[in-house]
Amino acid sequence: MKGYAMLRIGETGWIEKERPACGPIDAICRPLAVAICTSDVHTVYEGAIGDRHNMILGHECCAEVVEVGSEVKDFKPGDKVLVPAITPDWNSLEAQAGFSMHSGGMLAGWKFSNFKDGVFGEYFHVNDADGNLALLPEGMSLADACMLSDMVPTGFHAAEQADVQFGDTVLVIGIGPVGLMAVAGANLRGASRIIAVGTRPVCVAAAKQYGATDFISYKNGSISEQVMAMTGGKGVDRVCMAGGTVATFEEAVKAVKPGGRIGNVNYLGSGEFVTIPRVEWGAGMGHKVISGGLMPGGRLRMEKLATLITSGRLDVSPMSTHVFNGWEHVDEALQLMRAKPADLIKPVVIID
Amino acid sequence: MKGYAMLRIGETGWIEKERPACGPIDAICRPLAVAICTSDVHTVYEGAIGDRHNMILGHECCAEVVEVGSEVKDFKPGDKVLVPAITPDWNSLEAQAGFSMHSGGMLAGWKFSNFKDGVFGEYFHVNDADGNLALLPEGMSLADACMLSDMVPTGFHAAEQADVQFGDTVLVIGIGPVGLMAVAGANLRGASRIIAVGTRPVCVAAAKQYGATDFISYKNGSISEQVMAMTGGKGVDRVCMAGGTVATFEEAVKAVKPGGRIGNVNYLGSGEFVTIPRVEWGAGMGHKVISGGLMPGGRLRMEKLATLITSGRLDVSPMSTHVFNGWEHVDEALQLMRAKPADLIKPVVIID
Amino acid sequence: MKGYAMLRIGETGWIEKERPACGPIDAICRPLAVAICTSDVHTVYEGAIGDRHNMILGHECCAEVVEVGSEVKDFKPGDKVLVPAITPDWNSLEAQAGFSMHSGGMLAGWKFSNFKDGVFGEYFHVNDADGNLALLPEGMSLADACMLSDMVPTGFHAAEQADVQFGDTVLVIGIGPVGLMAVAGANLRGASRIIAVGTRPVCVAAAKQYGATDFISYKNGSISEQVMAMTGGKGVDRVCMAGGTVATFEEAVKAVKPGGRIGNVNYLGSGEFVTIPRVEWGAGMGHKVISGGLMPGGRLRMEKLATLITSGRLDVSPMSTHVFNGWEHVDEALQLMRAKPADLIKPVVIID
Amino acid sequence: MKGYAMLRIGETGWIEKERPACGPIDAICRPLAVAICTSDVHTVYEGAIGDRHNMILGHECCAEVVEVGSEVKDFKPGDKVLVPAITPDWNSLEAQAGFSMHSGGMLAGWKFSNFKDGVFGEYFHVNDADGNLALLPEGMSLADACMLSDMVPTGFHAAEQADVQFGDTVLVIGIGPVGLMAVAGANLRGASRIIAVGTRPVCVAAAKQYGATDFISYKNGSISEQVMAMTGGKGVDRVCMAGGTVATFEEAVKAVKPGGRIGNVNYLGSGEFVTIPRVEWGAGMGHKVISGGLMPGGRLRMEKLATLITSGRLDVSPMSTHVFNGWEHVDEALQLMRAKPADLIKPVVIID
Repeated sequence: MKGYAMLRIGETGWIEKERPACGPIDAICRPLAVAICTSDVHTVYEGAIGDRHNMILGHECCAEVVEVGSEVKDFKPGDKVLVPAITPDWNSLEAQAGFSMHSGGMLAGWKFSNFKDGVFGEYFHVNDADGNLALLPEGMSLADACMLSDMVPTGFHAAEQADVQFGDTVLVIGIGPVGLMAVAGANLRGASRIIAVGTRPVCVAAAKQYGATDFISYKNGSISEQVMAMTGGKGVDRVCMAGGTVATFEEAVKAVKPGGRIGNVNYLGSGEFVTIPRVEWGAGMGHKVISGGLMPGGRLRMEKLATLITSGRLDVSPMSTHVFNGWEHVDEALQLMRAKPADLIKPVVIID
Repeated sequence: MKGYAMLRIGETGWIEKERPACGPIDAICRPLAVAICTSDVHTVYEGAIGDRHNMILGHECCAEVVEVGSEVKDFKPGDKVLVPAITPDWNSLEAQAGFSMHSGGMLAGWKFSNFKDGVFGEYFHVNDADGNLALLPEGMSLADACMLSDMVPTGFHAAEQADVQFGDTVLVIGIGPVGLMAVAGANLRGASRIIAVGTRPVCVAAAKQYGATDFISYKNGSISEQVMAMTGGKGVDRVCMAGGTVATFEEAVKAVKPGGRIGNVNYLGSGEFVTIPRVEWGAGMGHKVISGGLMPGGRLRMEKLATLITSGRLDVSPMSTHVFNGWEHVDEALQLMRAKPADLIKPVVIID
Repeated sequence: MKGYAMLRIGETGWIEKERPACGPIDAICRPLAVAICTSDVHTVYEGAIGDRHNMILGHECCAEVVEVGSEVKDFKPGDKVLVPAITPDWNSLEAQAGFSMHSGGMLAGWKFSNFKDGVFGEYFHVNDADGNLALLPEGMSLADACMLSDMVPTGFHAAEQADVQFGDTVLVIGIGPVGLMAVAGANLRGASRIIAVGTRPVCVAAAKQYGATDFISYKNGSISEQVMAMTGGKGVDRVCMAGGTVATFEEAVKAVKPGGRIGNVNYLGSGEFVTIPRVEWGAGMGHKVISGGLMPGGRLRMEKLATLITSGRLDVSPMSTHVFNGWEHVDEALQLMRAKPADLIKPVVIID
Repeated sequence: MKGYAMLRIGETGWIEKERPACGPIDAICRPLAVAICTSDVHTVYEGAIGDRHNMILGHECCAEVVEVGSEVKDFKPGDKVLVPAITPDWNSLEAQAGFSMHSGGMLAGWKFSNFKDGVFGEYFHVNDADGNLALLPEGMSLADACMLSDMVPTGFHAAEQADVQFGDTVLVIGIGPVGLMAVAGANLRGASRIIAVGTRPVCVAAAKQYGATDFISYKNGSISEQVMAMTGGKGVDRVCMAGGTVATFEEAVKAVKPGGRIGNVNYLGSGEFVTIPRVEWGAGMGHKVISGGLMPGGRLRMEKLATLITSGRLDVSPMSTHVFNGWEHVDEALQLMRAKPADLIKPVVIID
């Protein structure tokens, strides 16, 4: 089979590989549509997860099942399915402890284009099919379905970690595709005011649609000072971090109230330390809880988030700003994600 | 009235002040016994909370009520009472949000020897008497009662923030008096294994009594490497921080499992940043939650923790290693706390 | 001063009383608008809280402060304020334990027209003004402000107790004014599907606006059977109870999934026992958690919920279907609430 | 192979069956020791789970692995293992939602001697071996190991559901073997006072050892009245229910404070309704949360609880009051459990 792969750091191309084998609880699928993630760019061009050779890229897609193992009960060849970026081993100790995304080790629930080939190939392997696939809901577009692999569950996890409550004022740092879903998540949990940090017009427009009420630009001074000015010196109840760097936590800690929470879903690609400002963190005493975590994956998560789309409560269609048709456009889509033109949120490639 | 005060940074002495006035919901008390806290040392000799002039020191004591305001219902002159270090304004927005220790601003529930005179005076003022005092349980020694002002509620709050569960392996960093109570708190919440960091023999002996099962010394290499060696490379479920510096968080993050929690109650007196090691924090994705918070104060907290002592579940008597009699020994007790001789845990001065 | 009072069970009228006295932390207010609650009807005509003589009725209003005690810091005469139905004693042990509505005893945070005169008088007394009043937000209508006393915080508390999560299917039993706010609360916490039980057209129309997606009528058979038919036999994730009787819990337990939660805010006025069906409750093993609780009151709660209205996220204007002008209409409004005509949701009387 | 089975309601005997087949993720084990549970008695003699024919009984044991499926990674023939009574399908939607004991349907995580043959046979089948077995800790006795199948995880789950906190007063209803472990669980979570309901001297003695501080007899009047008398009319913070009937909830609701929680692990075998007293439940408004749930099973749970035993924090040896040797004593042990002589807590049969 063919796959679009990272050949080595900085280089990609189509390669030929054997179709993966299917274990007794697994499935083999073929993509119906795939989406490009910023992490694909980081993986290839920044070596974010280290060097990899001839590893097929991609972890966002929807697909058709082509083969299932002998023990798989709920799926059969021909089923159209949602596929999560994170596919835990559900019987692992970590999953039993409530942290399935770390099954087998920290972040090890992330397997596609990390520990095994990703979804940008003619076929791909899904561990624990019953636990990790979900039926594609009737009427959901293939592009929308791709947003359920990573963007929706990741963005919403920022709001979950920040524990947004009725009437909260929430700061969302970053309004790329994940940040937009953090805005939507904070909104769907009952925030009254959502202050978003970002300036790209296409993202600002989408953020408004998803519930952002105020906007801040990095360019107008420090985030925290702007937040303090906008909140009468009180700060925000919660912070969702979906952008920035290790240094951005300084702004988050300064902007949040005592008793508030910071929920990070931004992959911190470089820097030795995340720096927490001692004084504004209350000298270790301010109850400003800092949490950061990989999205929960698996079947139930996708099924439930999918109902937000099918019920009309969440419209992810504005996310897929660039839609291509055919495998031959995968490279173009990746380069687009790398170049990030002004009008881009997410590129999607429809295969079938 | 007389009070033992911080005259300025680095200098203490007895001063004469007016007895404080009693508002309608307040009480005026006189100490029956006082205890010295490391923070008293930091306040005076390190200027930890900034410069203060002629501020009476102290926030740990038990006392007798001498006057109550017109609206006070549950206490009357002559009552012997427990007094918490943190005395919130219970009707504040922060208290209504569940963070009474930050009533009126971050850490502002801490009033004694911070925003007003402390308890090392003939009389002291207690805001909201009904909300912040508790009757001294019958049969409780005055020295034991002093441990309920700060040591017990602070140490236990580390275990609460770390959210210790049945069968957890817990790392407790620091086994001074607060760390010992963190050990006791982790033990009373059902930890199976408590790895304590510290070497002073008197503290090691007490820590064993409170439930520590293993000991680590800073001197034998990094904490996290020792923890990993002791746990088969798995790390601990929870970390209670009751000692160290802004840099010690690096060890805590390295030592804790994904999905684990770090609960800090150590006042971080210096350093610009708490430094969180990016890689071991899962690049922001490891679900290693970092919490740090001032102890919850007030009446209910003390009443409930007091029952652990009166029921015999918690023996705080080993804490008061040095007991003096009479106001004239307060300075000596403070100097002892500053010098920290090998056999010291806490110095207490019985007044009455 | 004059007040509209319950003279005895079954009888109301205007009486003359002394204006209440103002303690040091209290306030005296005069109503700007009042709303009638079904509980007022129950109190008078069903003796729901027992017999009362010459007790001024009412617990829903907004008001103007006319006097404050010496210790009140945040309010002054002339301030226009929101007033919650539940006015806790914030320094009570119950409030310190997180259950301010039970300060001083079960349900004892409810004082207006229960333990003291209510708000249907020229003046009324507010205990702990700083803790229990909130400034009327600029631009909020007086009728909308009245919905923040009880309807919004009570209805939302059903969704809080049921712990609604992203993508949940939620059953809301009862779509009177409280049930409508339970629908809105479930929706604002991210439910995907909200099945509402009720048939009055004005309420059905409002429920749709607040997020209900499906409707069930008592008249078409048992609630649980209808729910099972609509959910493919799976049941719902959560139940909000805002109507029915002690027997309605049977339907709720049958309709909810194992691991689900039932949040009740319906005052159960009669019946000896709430009956939980043993088999469908998993013989005591099904993890179907049953919670029922009085709304949280006080200042912070109202301030936060008010921001949902001022930010445009919650439109309570459809609630006030019948708006009168002048004290002389209070009796008419009460009789309207008693008669419950087809087009009624809530009657409001604007005083000023 | 031979197995000790329920032939039909009221009748047991040894039968011959085929050794169960081993799926790719499963294991076949042979018991090293088995324990009798009251549920075995209920199953056979009261038909508690309905009629069953030739079903091998038993769900408490420790064992040796004799065969594993192709996909099992962490266990191999010859391994000695702990075996939980509840063996979830970890990839089920219910397990992903945090309720693994209900995987596949309410209570359906309970498979042994319910949906398939139990452990009182020469061999038995374990679904998902990696997820549901745990290595027998070195030095743990076989009798102690049997207590980890059901008694410890079930009893402790009462304390978990009741959410026992530092300094709580806890009522434990029932001090049979599960109730004793509820006492131990409440104690290990930091209760100050544990009021136990029960009178059998062997159980009272054990309960004291596990932390009970006070005792109540059903025979001296209603539980709730006795509790009120012992707590100055305040009631308890939490109730753990490990005995009684559907009517006993009345006492629990009456005995618990507003804001308290009731955690039930008692299998309610008969009665149409659990009856919650309306008035004492605050007319549906008292925040007295009622939870009842089957124990969480699986590997992690057993591994963690086992560390409480190996660390010496929990001594389960007093539980096994009657220890037999050899399969031929299984019937005798069952009859003993049925007869419940005065000196019995649990009968255990050592096979090997």
